[in-house]
Amino acid sequence: MRCEVVAVGTELLLGQIVDTNSSWIGEQLAMVGIDSHFQTKVGDNWDRIEASLRHALSRSDAVVVCGGLGPTQDDITRDVIARLMGVELVTDPVIEERIRNMFGSRGRTMPENNLRQAQVPVGASTIPQQPGTAPGLVCPLEIDGEEKVIYAVPGVPYEMKEMVTGTVLPDLARRAGVSAVIASRTLRTWGQSESGLAETLAERITELDEIGNPTIAFLASGIEGLKVRVTAKADTEEAVATILDEEETLLRGILGDLVFGLDDQTMASVVLDQLREQGRTIAIAESVTGGWLAARLTDVPGSSDVFLGSVVSYASSVKNQLLSVPEGPVINPETAAQMAEGVAALMGADVGIGITGVAGPGEAEGQKAGTVHYATTIDGVTETSTLQFPFARDQVRQFSVITVLGSLRLRLNG
Amino acid sequence: MRCEVVAVGTELLLGQIVDTNSSWIGEQLAMVGIDSHFQTKVGDNWDRIEASLRHALSRSDAVVVCGGLGPTQDDITRDVIARLMGVELVTDPVIEERIRNMFGSRGRTMPENNLRQAQVPVGASTIPQQPGTAPGLVCPLEIDGEEKVIYAVPGVPYEMKEMVTGTVLPDLARRAGVSAVIASRTLRTWGQSESGLAETLAERITELDEIGNPTIAFLASGIEGLKVRVTAKADTEEAVATILDEEETLLRGILGDLVFGLDDQTMASVVLDQLREQGRTIAIAESVTGGWLAARLTDVPGSSDVFLGSVVSYASSVKNQLLSVPEGPVINPETAAQMAEGVAALMGADVGIGITGVAGPGEAEGQKAGTVHYATTIDGVTETSTLQFPFARDQVRQFSVITVLGSLRLRLNG
Repeated sequence: MRCEVVAVGTELLLGQIVDTNSSWIGEQLAMVGIDSHFQTKVGDNWDRIEASLRHALSRSDAVVVCGGLGPTQDDITRDVIARLMGVELVTDPVIEERIRNMFGSRGRTMPENNLRQAQVPVGASTIPQQPGTAPGLVCPLEIDGEEKVIYAVPGVPYEMKEMVTGTVLPDLARRAGVSAVIASRTLRTWGQSESGLAETLAERITELDEIGNPTIAFLASGIEGLKVRVTAKADTEEAVATILDEEETLLRGILGDLVFGLDDQTMASVVLDQLREQGRTIAIAESVTGGWLAARLTDVPGSSDVFLGSVVSYASSVKNQLLSVPEGPVINPETAAQMAEGVAALMGADVGIGITGVAGPGEAEGQKAGTVHYATTIDGVTETSTLQFPFARDQVRQFSVITVLGSLRLRLNG
Repeated sequence: MRCEVVAVGTELLLGQIVDTNSSWIGEQLAMVGIDSHFQTKVGDNWDRIEASLRHALSRSDAVVVCGGLGPTQDDITRDVIARLMGVELVTDPVIEERIRNMFGSRGRTMPENNLRQAQVPVGASTIPQQPGTAPGLVCPLEIDGEEKVIYAVPGVPYEMKEMVTGTVLPDLARRAGVSAVIASRTLRTWGQSESGLAETLAERITELDEIGNPTIAFLASGIEGLKVRVTAKADTEEAVATILDEEETLLRGILGDLVFGLDDQTMASVVLDQLREQGRTIAIAESVTGGWLAARLTDVPGSSDVFLGSVVSYASSVKNQLLSVPEGPVINPETAAQMAEGVAALMGADVGIGITGVAGPGEAEGQKAGTVHYATTIDGVTETSTLQFPFARDQVRQFSVITVLGSLRLRLNG
């Protein structure tokens, strides 16, 4: 079973919007084991949309076409599909009613254009869309004597995702005769490079290559860590969960402390959870990261119960006066320690972090860009470390944030 | 002249990487007036890459193919092009030498694979790449009796951009017989919605639609502001610059204070420049933005001469003790003012910002998510404002940051 993706919209070709929909759909198709060999972007042009759909269907069994279902004259996807199917568009009274009601309930007059969205090619079925007005379409058709199908979904990402997950993927799986359940789990790691991780897991990777199920893949994701994604296939959800559980246990056994979280957990959310469990509070003094460390922690809803605050001590005078750092050079492990201890005392926190360094460009205090010194203090016991990143300013700051939080995590683990 | 884009890489189809290269190239092509009707993503597969290139060249004059030029066995773009051209690949001694030297100078042994990058189809010319090892290729070929051209560039964005700007676009313009110079300038605005801006500029937009040169386009860019991009075309660089200057003057006349910067200037960099010019320093006390405001200022290299620091006062106790905010409710304009004045006094800054509110989800102190109170104090004179954003947590924080900086900018303007 092969399924291509065609993204419709002149704004995609002009680079005004980056086409993230195709990437997301491609990922979903791969997850359920459906091959997707080509993805195409095409403008709001009748002939070119038709040519793209026809070409895609000549080499694949199905196409997900994304965008061009709106109410304006530019939105011609449904018209093109009807022509390709060789059928008329007819107004679906249920959808028309819903569109009219939607405008009525908001006390707005409905522009007549909007009824275009109630039109459906004869022979197609609709994918309901709440609360949007444009339904998706499942359009079976025959091309060169073969049964094919076009799925039309809106370009608005959350509407598109709902329809793909709820209708398109199950329908594709049914047509492909796939009865298997496929699911994945991501182990987030920090502390080894991608090649280092591949080496550590080499033996298991070879075994899995032979077994074929589950599969694992790496994805370097910057401040989100280096992800190891495990994907498994089985007849039932329970069986899939068992495979994922067993593989997670096995990988954790090999990777140990490198694994800091699962799926959507960030290093910040993990550290906040640890602190919450241990009944500890945290305060931060940051210089080189300039607010990023605090921002990353406060990204997590509910962080306020353990995160007391941060002093962004960019000027040395702030380090001296607020954090009791003695006057003199400030880019060294001792200063990081004084910052950590100073801010913990200042805010009355159990745990403190201090971080100072050179984000670049250019060096400071004779130390080159990418040098970062940090300290963590827990109940008065302080540890320091020094890093040297070969990266540009932004990356130095981001990698500093996850590294220092990762180091605190290990200390809190005991 | 028509030019398509083909992005090569299985990871693009699987959604492991979003294809931003095609969008960027599409934008560049549009800027120089070259039509790009289709963009295709294809995996690392010989037959499918060849089919994509052949199909693209059957309906367009040129193709930019992006990716697949690396040293591994997966990188087959140059091999496919040679087959399409019906020629052999030969090793370019100059490139071979450069690759060997690069490894030598780093004291590393060169894997033999890397010499693949020195191979060039007979009849193609190379686009030099410093300091990367993979050169780009300009490959003229005949398809169905017509002269066509393939430009092969690496998938690494900064290498790709350098080659497209430096070689591909000028070569395309030459082949298209375009002698015009095209350039654009972006006015960054803040304070009006996209539709409000369109209304304010309605008369000028209508005029420009008739004149046709320059053109203007809007682009909502979140924390980067709402961009108004002016693109002009003329025979010489001087003439283009004159058109852009005149249009900028005219738009600034209509938009007034809404325009905060040009091109790459951010609201943070503009405010830092104002402060630097006025010899003023700034300190920040932030609660709802949780470090983002400081992070945004310290994103700007060289910010340390005017930015003294920030107190992220997430806990009320930190507001009370460090910033002299009286005990009691803390989500109100008075607290914002006390925070601004408190942090300016604490750090000895001329200018202070205080910001408090409810990022959500959920309300606090009886105020709903999206409520933000902020204050700016300049030389002891304090002003406060209250905002109500109908957005989710992340957007509330981001819009708060640009709004409060924008408000400070207007005050510093006098």
